Amino acid sequence: MAATRKTNPSQPRHTRDVEHWDLETDVAVVGFGGAGGCAAIEAADAGAEVHIFELASASGGSTALSSAEIYMGGSGGTRVQRATGFEDSTEDMFQFMMACAGPQADEAKIRNYCERSVEHFNWLVGLGVPFKDSFLNERAIMCLTDDGLLYTGNEKAWPFSSIAKPCPRGHNLYVEGDNGGPLFMKIVTENVEQRARIQVHYETRALTLIVDDNDEVVGLVVRENQQELNVRARGGVILCAGGFVMNREMVARHAPKLTLGTEPIGNPGDTGSGIQMGLSVGGAAINMHEGFITLPFYPPASLTYGIAINDKGQRFINEDVYHGRFGDFVLRQPSERIYLILNVEHYADYETASYLGAPVAGTGETVAELEEELALREGSLAYTLATYNEDCAAGNDSQFHKAPAWLQPLEPPLVALDLTPGRGAFVPHFTLGGLDTLPTGEVVNEQRDVVPGLYAAGRTACGVVRRAEGYASGMSVGDATFSGRLAGLQAAKRLQTLF
Amino acid sequence: MAATRKTNPSQPRHTRDVEHWDLETDVAVVGFGGAGGCAAIEAADAGAEVHIFELASASGGSTALSSAEIYMGGSGGTRVQRATGFEDSTEDMFQFMMACAGPQADEAKIRNYCERSVEHFNWLVGLGVPFKDSFLNERAIMCLTDDGLLYTGNEKAWPFSSIAKPCPRGHNLYVEGDNGGPLFMKIVTENVEQRARIQVHYETRALTLIVDDNDEVVGLVVRENQQELNVRARGGVILCAGGFVMNREMVARHAPKLTLGTEPIGNPGDTGSGIQMGLSVGGAAINMHEGFITLPFYPPASLTYGIAINDKGQRFINEDVYHGRFGDFVLRQPSERIYLILNVEHYADYETASYLGAPVAGTGETVAELEEELALREGSLAYTLATYNEDCAAGNDSQFHKAPAWLQPLEPPLVALDLTPGRGAFVPHFTLGGLDTLPTGEVVNEQRDVVPGLYAAGRTACGVVRRAEGYASGMSVGDATFSGRLAGLQAAKRLQTLF
Repeated sequence: MAATRKTNPSQPRHTRDVEHWDLETDVAVVGFGGAGGCAAIEAADAGAEVHIFELASASGGSTALSSAEIYMGGSGGTRVQRATGFEDSTEDMFQFMMACAGPQADEAKIRNYCERSVEHFNWLVGLGVPFKDSFLNERAIMCLTDDGLLYTGNEKAWPFSSIAKPCPRGHNLYVEGDNGGPLFMKIVTENVEQRARIQVHYETRALTLIVDDNDEVVGLVVRENQQELNVRARGGVILCAGGFVMNREMVARHAPKLTLGTEPIGNPGDTGSGIQMGLSVGGAAINMHEGFITLPFYPPASLTYGIAINDKGQRFINEDVYHGRFGDFVLRQPSERIYLILNVEHYADYETASYLGAPVAGTGETVAELEEELALREGSLAYTLATYNEDCAAGNDSQFHKAPAWLQPLEPPLVALDLTPGRGAFVPHFTLGGLDTLPTGEVVNEQRDVVPGLYAAGRTACGVVRRAEGYASGMSVGDATFSGRLAGLQAAKRLQTLF
Repeated sequence: MAATRKTNPSQPRHTRDVEHWDLETDVAVVGFGGAGGCAAIEAADAGAEVHIFELASASGGSTALSSAEIYMGGSGGTRVQRATGFEDSTEDMFQFMMACAGPQADEAKIRNYCERSVEHFNWLVGLGVPFKDSFLNERAIMCLTDDGLLYTGNEKAWPFSSIAKPCPRGHNLYVEGDNGGPLFMKIVTENVEQRARIQVHYETRALTLIVDDNDEVVGLVVRENQQELNVRARGGVILCAGGFVMNREMVARHAPKLTLGTEPIGNPGDTGSGIQMGLSVGGAAINMHEGFITLPFYPPASLTYGIAINDKGQRFINEDVYHGRFGDFVLRQPSERIYLILNVEHYADYETASYLGAPVAGTGETVAELEEELALREGSLAYTLATYNEDCAAGNDSQFHKAPAWLQPLEPPLVALDLTPGRGAFVPHFTLGGLDTLPTGEVVNEQRDVVPGLYAAGRTACGVVRRAEGYASGMSVGDATFSGRLAGLQAAKRLQTLF
C-alpha cells in the first residue's frame, strides 16, 4: 500500500526506504526567509555545515514582504532606545508581552526573548543591519521615514498601559519608505553568502522528512532539478517554512475565524508544509485557531478621535489600541454590522490617506438622521455619543479608557464608515499557530517530549506571538529571527554531542 | 535512544519491535463509553471479532455520567416526535446544525448525521433503549421527568429561529430523574455482553498504537494485569477514549479559554490519550481550541426574564438562548464583570432552585442605587433598562431579539447576580476538539488522506458538534453513538476487503 502513496509532507520516509544519501550535511534548513537565514548563520558560526533548501528562486520569504520592524528592548534599552531617551526594563517588556499573549502565553519563551533582546539587537547590528538613533512619534502602522524607533503595539493603550510602563520597541531599518523587509533580507542573504559553510539550494522543494528506526529525524527528501534527493542532516532539520495562511483548506479547518478576513498576508510558500512535516513525525501543533486579523483604520491617526460602534449603537473598545486588537474585538462582537463614527473633518483625512477602503455607511446632519441611515435603534447612538462627549469634556473615558489625548467630542455633521468585514474594508490576516517548540527550537510532541533531530522557527513554530488582540508590529520578524538563531545553535550543539 | 523512551501514546510501536502477538482480533476498540459500545456492537453485527479495552473497572465513560439526552430528528420525525405532534424535516435539522457549527461546520458529517438520524433512533430502540412518547414543554437543562422529548438547544432562539423551523430534538430516556446516562450504558453493556463476538477487557489501559512498515495501524499495546500485551487488530483500531478535558496541560495549550471555566466535565479517563495516539501516527487534530463552556442560569426558567449586562451596563445577548451559547457570549465580552439583572420575584425562584451558585453582586430599591453598588457608570443601566422596558411594552426586543414570551419589564427593586467566571458561579466545561475523521470514522492526516487502520469516534474525534455557541444537549451522546456505529461498520468492512 505504501507504494501507491505520493511523497507528501504528511508521510515521512523511512531510512529503510532510502537506498543512498544524495547529499550529506550537518544541518538542513527548510526555507530562506528571516528565520531560515538566521538559523543558517548561527549554525554555521557554531561550526556546522549547513544546506538551505528554498522553494523560491530567491531568498526572502514573508520577511522580505514585510516592513521588517523588529520588536526589541529590555535590559535598559537597545542602543536606539537609549539614544532616543527611552530606558526599557526587561520586566516591563516581559509583563507587556505576557499580557499580549494572555492565557496562551509561553512564559519560558517570552522570558528568554525579553532577556536576550538587546543581545539580539546587537547581533543584528553585527550582521550589518542599520538602525538610526531616532524616534518617530506617530501613530503609524509602518514607518515610512528612516527613523529607528516607534511605538508599534498596544503599549500606551489600556489595559496594557496599566500593566507595564509603556516603551517603544518597534525597531525600523535605516531606510526611507516601506522598504525594511527587502533591505533586511538583502543583508541576511549577504551574510549567508559570505559563509563558506552554508550552501543554498533555490527552487528546491522540501518534500518530506526522513526518520530512522528510532523515530529520529535524520534528513529530508527534496526535489531539485526535477529529481528527488535524499538529504542526510546529521545534526537535524530546521523547519523555517512559514505558516499556512495560503493553504485555505487548512485555514478553514484550523482557524475558521480568519476566513472572515479578506486578504491573506504571506508569500505563496506559506502552505503549511513545514507544519505538516512536523506533525507527520509526531510533533504537536498548537494555537492553530489563532491569527492576526486587523482593520487597519490608521493612518490617518485622526480616525482615532472617532468611536467604533456595533449595530446596537454600543461602543466596545478604546479606539486608541493597535489595529490588530481592534480587528480582533470587531470579530468578537455579537453584531452584524460595525461602524466607525467620525466628525466630518476627520473624514476628510480619511479620504486623503487610508489603507482601509471602508465604504461610507451613512452621514447625518443630526444624530437622529445618522441613526436612521444606519438602521440603529432610535436614541441608541445618541445615548452613546452623549456619554462619550460627557467623558471627553471630563478628560476621562470612564468605560473604555481611551487615553485623554484622543478624547474630542463628536458633534454632527457625522460620518459613519462601514467596518463590517466582508463589506469592502481591507481585512488582512495571517496565521499564528504552528509547531510547539521549546525555547531552543526543538520540536516537541503532545507529551512535550522532544522529537529528536527536528527544529522549527519563525511562523512554522508557535513563537512568542499568540493573539491578534496582543499583537505588535515587529513581533513576527523579531520572533522569526530570534527563534531561527536559537534553533540553528541547538542543531549545531546537538551535532557535537552526537559525533 | 528508543530504548530509553517509555511506552506512551505519543510514541507508536513498530511491528519490527513486536516479538510476538499476545492477542489477535479483527477490531480493537479503545474505551467502553457510548461511542466504544456502539462501535463494538456494529462491528460484531457485521461479522467481526471485537475486543474492547477499557481503562476503568466498568463500562460507562462520560456517557454514563451524562443525562444521555440524544439529539435526533429529521426525515419527518422520530417515533417520539411524530407521536407528540412534531413533524421534523431533514433540511430544517441540517440547516440548524450547520448554523450551530458555523464556520467550523463539517458539512458532509452533518448531512449524514441528519439524514440517518431517524434510522439511528430506530437502531437504539432496537437495542432496547426506551423513549416515552411524551413532550416536556419546559426550559430545562436536563429532563427530570420520564418524558421522551424536549427542546435542548437554541432552536427557538434568535437567530436560529429565523434560520430553520424550530423543532425539539432532545430525546430523553424513559426514566425518572437525571438517570439517563447510567440506564443507557446499562443497555449498551447488556447488548455487548450478549454478543459472543465481543470480549471486554476492563482495567486495561491502551498504551500506544502499533504500526507496520507501511505506516498502517495494525494493532496496539495494552497493559492488562500489569503486563504489556501486543494486540493485533486485523481490521483496525477504533479510538473511543474520550476527550482531553482532564489533561489540564493539554487544555491550557490547546483550549486556553476553557481555563476560565471552573468545573471540567468528563470522566478521569479523558486525558487526551486517544487523541495523542492518533497524532502519533500522523492523524490530524482539529478544533482543539473549542469547548463547551456554560453558565447554567436556568432552571429556574424565570431567570430568562432577566437581562445580562457587562460592566458598561450594556446588554449583549438574547437571554432566551441555550445556556452554552450564553456562556460563550459571556466569555467573548470585553468586560471584567458580567451581571444578571432580575426582578425580586425571580430572584426568589433563583434562591429555591438553581445550579448556578452565582453570588448576589448588588441590590437596588432604585436603578441608581444598583448602578452604584455595581460600580456602573451613572445612567448606563438606567438607559439599558429604559430601552428594554420600552421594547417589552412593544413586545419586540428590537436589538437582541429575545422571544416575546420572555419579555417582561424589569422594575425596581432589582437584584444583580454576579456571573463573572471565577467569582463563584458554576462554569462547567468540556473539550470539543479531536481527531479529524471522515464521516466513516476513518482518521485522516493534515492532507486529509486516510491513516490506514485507524478510526476514531465520540469525543476522541471531532464530530458534528463544534462550538459552545451552537451546542445543544444531546448532541454529544448523539454524535458519540452515531459516529461509533459508523466506525465499527467501517472497520468491519475494511477487514472484508483485506482478508
